[in-house]
Amino acid sequence: MSEHKEKDDYLPSNCFVTSMLTDMYQLTMTYAYWKGGRSDDVAVFDLLFRKNPFGGEYTIFAGLDECLRYVNVFGFSDTDVSNLRALFPEWEEKFWDYLLALDTSKIKVYAMREGAVAFPKVPMIRVEGPLGVAQLLETTFLCLVNFPSLVATNAARHRIAAGPTKKLSEFGLRRAQGPDGAMSASRYAYLGGFDATSNLAAGIKNDILLRGTHAHSFVSSYIGLHELNTKLLRRANSDEEVDFVDLCQNQLKLLKASRCNTGELAAFIAYAQAYPKGFLALVDTYDTLSSGVPNFLAVSLALNKLGYQPVGIRLDSGDLAYLSRECRKQFIQVSKAFSVPFEKLTIVASNDLNEEVLYSLRDQGHEIDSFGIGTHLVTCQRQPALGCVYKLVEINGSPRIKVSQDIVKVTIPGRKKPFRLYGRANQPVLDLLVLAGSPDPVVGERILCRHPFDSQKRVYISPQRVEPLHTLVWDGKSVPPLYSLQQCKEYCASQLKAVRSDHIRRLNPTPYKVSVTLELFTFLNDLWQSEVPIPEID
Amino acid sequence: MSEHKEKDDYLPSNCFVTSMLTDMYQLTMTYAYWKGGRSDDVAVFDLLFRKNPFGGEYTIFAGLDECLRYVNVFGFSDTDVSNLRALFPEWEEKFWDYLLALDTSKIKVYAMREGAVAFPKVPMIRVEGPLGVAQLLETTFLCLVNFPSLVATNAARHRIAAGPTKKLSEFGLRRAQGPDGAMSASRYAYLGGFDATSNLAAGIKNDILLRGTHAHSFVSSYIGLHELNTKLLRRANSDEEVDFVDLCQNQLKLLKASRCNTGELAAFIAYAQAYPKGFLALVDTYDTLSSGVPNFLAVSLALNKLGYQPVGIRLDSGDLAYLSRECRKQFIQVSKAFSVPFEKLTIVASNDLNEEVLYSLRDQGHEIDSFGIGTHLVTCQRQPALGCVYKLVEINGSPRIKVSQDIVKVTIPGRKKPFRLYGRANQPVLDLLVLAGSPDPVVGERILCRHPFDSQKRVYISPQRVEPLHTLVWDGKSVPPLYSLQQCKEYCASQLKAVRSDHIRRLNPTPYKVSVTLELFTFLNDLWQSEVPIPEID
Repeated sequence: MSEHKEKDDYLPSNCFVTSMLTDMYQLTMTYAYWKGGRSDDVAVFDLLFRKNPFGGEYTIFAGLDECLRYVNVFGFSDTDVSNLRALFPEWEEKFWDYLLALDTSKIKVYAMREGAVAFPKVPMIRVEGPLGVAQLLETTFLCLVNFPSLVATNAARHRIAAGPTKKLSEFGLRRAQGPDGAMSASRYAYLGGFDATSNLAAGIKNDILLRGTHAHSFVSSYIGLHELNTKLLRRANSDEEVDFVDLCQNQLKLLKASRCNTGELAAFIAYAQAYPKGFLALVDTYDTLSSGVPNFLAVSLALNKLGYQPVGIRLDSGDLAYLSRECRKQFIQVSKAFSVPFEKLTIVASNDLNEEVLYSLRDQGHEIDSFGIGTHLVTCQRQPALGCVYKLVEINGSPRIKVSQDIVKVTIPGRKKPFRLYGRANQPVLDLLVLAGSPDPVVGERILCRHPFDSQKRVYISPQRVEPLHTLVWDGKSVPPLYSLQQCKEYCASQLKAVRSDHIRRLNPTPYKVSVTLELFTFLNDLWQSEVPIPEID
Repeated sequence: MSEHKEKDDYLPSNCFVTSMLTDMYQLTMTYAYWKGGRSDDVAVFDLLFRKNPFGGEYTIFAGLDECLRYVNVFGFSDTDVSNLRALFPEWEEKFWDYLLALDTSKIKVYAMREGAVAFPKVPMIRVEGPLGVAQLLETTFLCLVNFPSLVATNAARHRIAAGPTKKLSEFGLRRAQGPDGAMSASRYAYLGGFDATSNLAAGIKNDILLRGTHAHSFVSSYIGLHELNTKLLRRANSDEEVDFVDLCQNQLKLLKASRCNTGELAAFIAYAQAYPKGFLALVDTYDTLSSGVPNFLAVSLALNKLGYQPVGIRLDSGDLAYLSRECRKQFIQVSKAFSVPFEKLTIVASNDLNEEVLYSLRDQGHEIDSFGIGTHLVTCQRQPALGCVYKLVEINGSPRIKVSQDIVKVTIPGRKKPFRLYGRANQPVLDLLVLAGSPDPVVGERILCRHPFDSQKRVYISPQRVEPLHTLVWDGKSVPPLYSLQQCKEYCASQLKAVRSDHIRRLNPTPYKVSVTLELFTFLNDLWQSEVPIPEID
């Protein structure tokens, strides 16, 4: 977790992330730019999204670290060239020399800090440099920002829904969109506010807390007590071995639970023998309240007699609010009846959870301490793609615009600096885009902020604080500081805390204002008029 | 595309696919099984799904090749063990020796053929072998089957929606769930019925046709004709160089198009200079019908004069049905007016296409030849996860059942052989699960097929053909034949062709019957009664 990563930490984090992981049209364009003598024209591209995901009004920016790792290894190998030659045998010989020599030494990347709260139309990344190279970064950058930002945002929304004190674990590996979809989901769910993952590889790679106990198959693999290869368990504080099976059976009798599945009891005993200090049992294989919980309590009471404290249960089906309350009741009853400290045993819940279910559970009242969330989190079921785009906004100093009949698709032209302006309560009030050559907004000085397209929407602000949103993160080489995942996670949490609560609330959140200066407004609208023919009705 | 792959082709296809790409609870279970002396118990696991995706009644099985590659490299390295030791310092020393020695030499994998049409509850894969190893395959197998099967099914649905003659290209890299989400999407979209991909790395890796031309940024990077570094283009059949810019401008005058964007014209000229034999232009940067199409036609007429045939256009916004018809009209008009063969120029359409839009375009009438489909295809927006599960069905010869209040979640116990029974028209009528020790169904012999859970649903069939759905694909080592991607794609197409059309139709498709023998029905229901307590109302 060091502040400054070493250069040699700059390994590609993903075996697929090479300069060939791109749309083929990037290469056909590269050739056409080269052929047309335009490769070294100076281009500026903005990477932005147009609409927040999940019906919300905010987005967490993530994926920058992976973009920079990619920029660092950018380039085409002899193998790449021989593959491309086979596809494009008609390309001129000299082009291959050009391609082999390409690198990012003349590229500058400006970006928001990873973990930042971002809003539509405000570029999260700005790339400047030779058209031939800057263009080639498009698809890979988009691929490396879209899903990480989406998952981080989804995780942040789940965190807000669960409340700050609950433990959240990502359980999505088996349902993710491929192995790397899973790896990304673990990493960026953590960044967005999760505490842990079930994914062993992701946990180890990213230094994320790992969580997990056993599956239903462990329980159903036991048919009866005869399958236990030993009846014994050693006491916590001595070498004495006790007949643990006998002890568990006695506790079950005391609990007066007559309808428990014996295979399940055997499985719990075997699990407790392996993990006497970490006994957490999945209790819904046969019947949660009639079988799973009494079996769990019997084994827990037996563990208690040997000096061990059980951890808790996991519920994976049924009415989680009701079951968790019933389980808590039983824990409290048993604590009283047997004088054991079982009141606060952990209740973990899983089974197709999502943001809405978390809100619903809160409304109903529940006793769950920890949630394991898989499919909905990692595949972002509610909206499985973020629509980031990478648009040319300037070439050789001339601003460029992408026009569209659809106003949300019109890009804001020119090289721009984004600022976040803070109001009296030290809360962000709006983001302001300023043309690069123009003066920055100044604390305490009143400035007119205009909606980029709607001429009716204008507002004056005298900012209490002015925060430039972009810093230079690549200038032909990496520009420190680089932030660790942990630092990005903390930054994300602090950013979400700073935002006005009505922007992040569940229902009808208030859109955050994104504005341009008067100068940029005029400039944008003039350019639009000049580039686009007025439609004519025949 | 050889029938039999070589052993050394068995490299892991994905850098993340190692035995550490699993849920941590698989390892905690492994230890508990080992500690309980159960590691070598003989287990049978079924991999199946319970519900077809996308509201349909069929699913394409995919991902088997990657599962087998994983089985081939399965095992834990010294590094893995040292990482695990750090997580579980209390595990016994001898366990690490056990873990280091684990391999799949005693594992058998039975599976459907990759590309098969599969139905709920019928295992696509059956794994048999030592409990310790078979359990460890769970998460990775699910990760390697869920998304491939989902994407292949999604692609098959898009193919059916588009009709058999249209070209379908996968354009999803930038919006996919991570780099490998994209790589998987390209591969399995091809398997499910797509023709091509834009993803350069995926196309080269999988030998899939690549498609792509240029982006809006290429067009908007040109402001005027002065940016063209040469006015010349060589004739197709001689070395004579002609003033191509002049020629294009003259053609534009002949077309009487007065409202064209000059930067766009310059970009098209530059693109045609680079690709005189492959000129396909994106025509919606400024205005499709007023600017893009006339500019395209001017450059196309000029190319025609030099002996080149243009390819076509791409539409990326607006009303695609209308615009494609208008474009086709203009192509036909120009063909007549200028005596050029432009009637059948290709019209490619992209922009947020999905299955529903394809049906809608068909309903409206359109002139599109080729579709580029991205986000909805590769992220499976309509349902981004398939719910495959991996369930223990037998241990040491004893059948196991996973019970649930929710009937669709109950698993069918025991080691089972699945068969597909064909009726008179040589069409599949139902899939039948038979206990492994029981006789196979026989052609022409009447057999009773029962719904596994609903005692009312029974049917007699005298099959015209009996197809065993499982073959042994891993028996401690790979069992040939292994099928290439191309073969899987062809098999998928032939399977879809064989299925009765009402099972795959768009609206209210008929559910396909999945049945069990009378013997298995009785066996299943007896086991259920014996394992599960009857709930008691207090």
